[in-house]
Amino acid sequence: MKRVFSIIAMLGFAIAAWGQQALGPGSGIVSPEIHPDHTVTFRYHGPKAVTVRLTGDFLPTRPVEIETGGQKLVYDAPGVVDLKEGPGGIWEYTTEPLAGELYMYTFLVDGVKVMDPSNIYQIRDVATWTNVFTLSAEPGDKGWYYEVHDVPHGSVSHVWYESPALESKQRRLSIYTPPGYEGSSARYPVLYLLHGSGGDEDAWTDLGRTAQILDNLIAEGKAKPMIVVMPNGVWFNQAAPGAAVNMFQPTFTNSRSQSTEEIENSFPDIMNFIEKNYRVAKGYANTAVAGLSMGGRQSFMLSLRYPGKFGYVGLFSGVGLTEGNEASIDKVFAARPRLYWIGCGKADGVMVNTRKLVDYCNAKGHPITFYESEGGHTWRNWRIYLTCFTQQLFK
Amino acid sequence: MKRVFSIIAMLGFAIAAWGQQALGPGSGIVSPEIHPDHTVTFRYHGPKAVTVRLTGDFLPTRPVEIETGGQKLVYDAPGVVDLKEGPGGIWEYTTEPLAGELYMYTFLVDGVKVMDPSNIYQIRDVATWTNVFTLSAEPGDKGWYYEVHDVPHGSVSHVWYESPALESKQRRLSIYTPPGYEGSSARYPVLYLLHGSGGDEDAWTDLGRTAQILDNLIAEGKAKPMIVVMPNGVWFNQAAPGAAVNMFQPTFTNSRSQSTEEIENSFPDIMNFIEKNYRVAKGYANTAVAGLSMGGRQSFMLSLRYPGKFGYVGLFSGVGLTEGNEASIDKVFAARPRLYWIGCGKADGVMVNTRKLVDYCNAKGHPITFYESEGGHTWRNWRIYLTCFTQQLFK
Repeated sequence: MKRVFSIIAMLGFAIAAWGQQALGPGSGIVSPEIHPDHTVTFRYHGPKAVTVRLTGDFLPTRPVEIETGGQKLVYDAPGVVDLKEGPGGIWEYTTEPLAGELYMYTFLVDGVKVMDPSNIYQIRDVATWTNVFTLSAEPGDKGWYYEVHDVPHGSVSHVWYESPALESKQRRLSIYTPPGYEGSSARYPVLYLLHGSGGDEDAWTDLGRTAQILDNLIAEGKAKPMIVVMPNGVWFNQAAPGAAVNMFQPTFTNSRSQSTEEIENSFPDIMNFIEKNYRVAKGYANTAVAGLSMGGRQSFMLSLRYPGKFGYVGLFSGVGLTEGNEASIDKVFAARPRLYWIGCGKADGVMVNTRKLVDYCNAKGHPITFYESEGGHTWRNWRIYLTCFTQQLFK
Repeated sequence: MKRVFSIIAMLGFAIAAWGQQALGPGSGIVSPEIHPDHTVTFRYHGPKAVTVRLTGDFLPTRPVEIETGGQKLVYDAPGVVDLKEGPGGIWEYTTEPLAGELYMYTFLVDGVKVMDPSNIYQIRDVATWTNVFTLSAEPGDKGWYYEVHDVPHGSVSHVWYESPALESKQRRLSIYTPPGYEGSSARYPVLYLLHGSGGDEDAWTDLGRTAQILDNLIAEGKAKPMIVVMPNGVWFNQAAPGAAVNMFQPTFTNSRSQSTEEIENSFPDIMNFIEKNYRVAKGYANTAVAGLSMGGRQSFMLSLRYPGKFGYVGLFSGVGLTEGNEASIDKVFAARPRLYWIGCGKADGVMVNTRKLVDYCNAKGHPITFYESEGGHTWRNWRIYLTCFTQQLFK
């Protein structure tokens, strides 16, 4: 028996390894290796490589100028460092001690982007794949919340609903149900959580670590058990790549996809589907909406369009216009939302419009919670915002 | 508004693009491009590259010799071809016309494995990522069944159950529920579908295209609506990478993971969880088990251990030993299974043991269905077997 299965295993290995021309998994190379002092070593087997470099969001940033439509913008691009070649063609680089976080990186081998063959952890952000790893420097830091711990786990389901008015009638959404949902008869409050431009219904679970953050917060008693509904917010897409009819490359820079009115119009289709098929506690005290970037704008518009519907609203690095919407904003607050939470990074281009909304609300005495964070328009911030926001819901 | 959001979009793009040193998505490069005559063009932007090659399972194979534990094995490795450099540093290669199939490939840029930056479709097989694309040469060919079509879609959920006896008590499984399951009160038959060595509860949905195959077969009336339960079959793992506590590199070649007795022992934990929490039609006429490779061995052993429990059994490129199990095999057939389906490729190392079981059953007059296919120990075969097997269930 043993012999037969070792042959099978080898066959399988050979089949799986065909694309992997470098030393593959099982080569003994560990990368990334997280050390007890929270430094991290990256390794790459490249005996024929001339240069092996590493780019990652834990390295000191470098300013990069980009130009678009006649405008010049400077943003802080992640740094690049050289790995050093050692015995056996193994290249290595070790970082400074790192804080708890979910980090992203790739190698540059002779100038070409190469995924780390020793690390199968990858996440797609719109149309770019990068390697990832999580590090918790101490229990309870933000990296800790992004990791899977030995706590009760909720379920994540990908389900389809109908939205007859939209171009793509059959649409997919991701649903987090909290631990114990199965086999219970309890009803749960619902957070509708919306992604940004270029994203899809997988963005919040994959990049946002929603299931891990909720599992960990619920286990600690810091968040109430809740259902989190993550729809696809691009009105003409039905689903994430791979789940949709036709192969497509998602993109940020599609002005058609920036139109969010269609989703706002059809939002009742989503809520009706959820309220019909899940054990939902209804009413504004049990209903929240939040989103990042484009999803923040959608959440803002949804709060204006349906005042009194959402007891809790979260705008993460995304708002709509204050000018022209003053009367609608006043109506929102006349319906006394329990929490109107606005988060934005100091370096974020969205801060201009965010500040206008914050100033208007402050001037009118509308009770908002404003979290002005460090950093910019990044998933790093959106994970933090989600961790903060969900602790204040349904209490 | 437009101006603000174009800045945001650009910021987002710049952030997402940092790892992507070549021309990224939106560059206008289309790869792979599937032409009306079913030839496929691959493109790579590499103005500094010296050689750009392509390896994929649609190219003529080449024999490769591997040695393991003193044994020499020859297997057919996918071929490698050169791309040709054209204007602007765009390298290109066009295939012969291809049959309908899910195909896998990667580039080799100056000898280093590089994912196609114009194709975000990737699938992980154990610890190797490769680019993928599907092609349906004509409606109803096998590639067609692996694609998403405009038919009603079932849900795929990732849920956790408890198995107190196992080393990892909290364990994750994937569940396909058919279109209409939500909002219905009907009870459905269940197929338990098991992965191979090195796999996990995501293998059948990702590489096996289970949801697409079932959606399409059900829409055509060729398969009965059914629930498909895909557990994690490695007894000491709790979940796929990313969903489990601790980061780990999955591997085939771990003798500990070849031990399947623990899962067989604890299989009632899975069935009890499903029968308690899903609308399941019980009884052997409504219960099937099937698996590939290691999962085929598990399915065989489960059929022996619980005769009369599974009315339908599918062994895909994996069986247990016939010698010593004759009496148990006779008991299985005394309980009159409705279908005992065995599939194996002619070039598969598992054929030796498969043939022994087939010969034994034929000699004893036990009614089996034996499908001797072309090819070997590959996902290409397992998708075909699933497509055949599920059409014969619960009828």
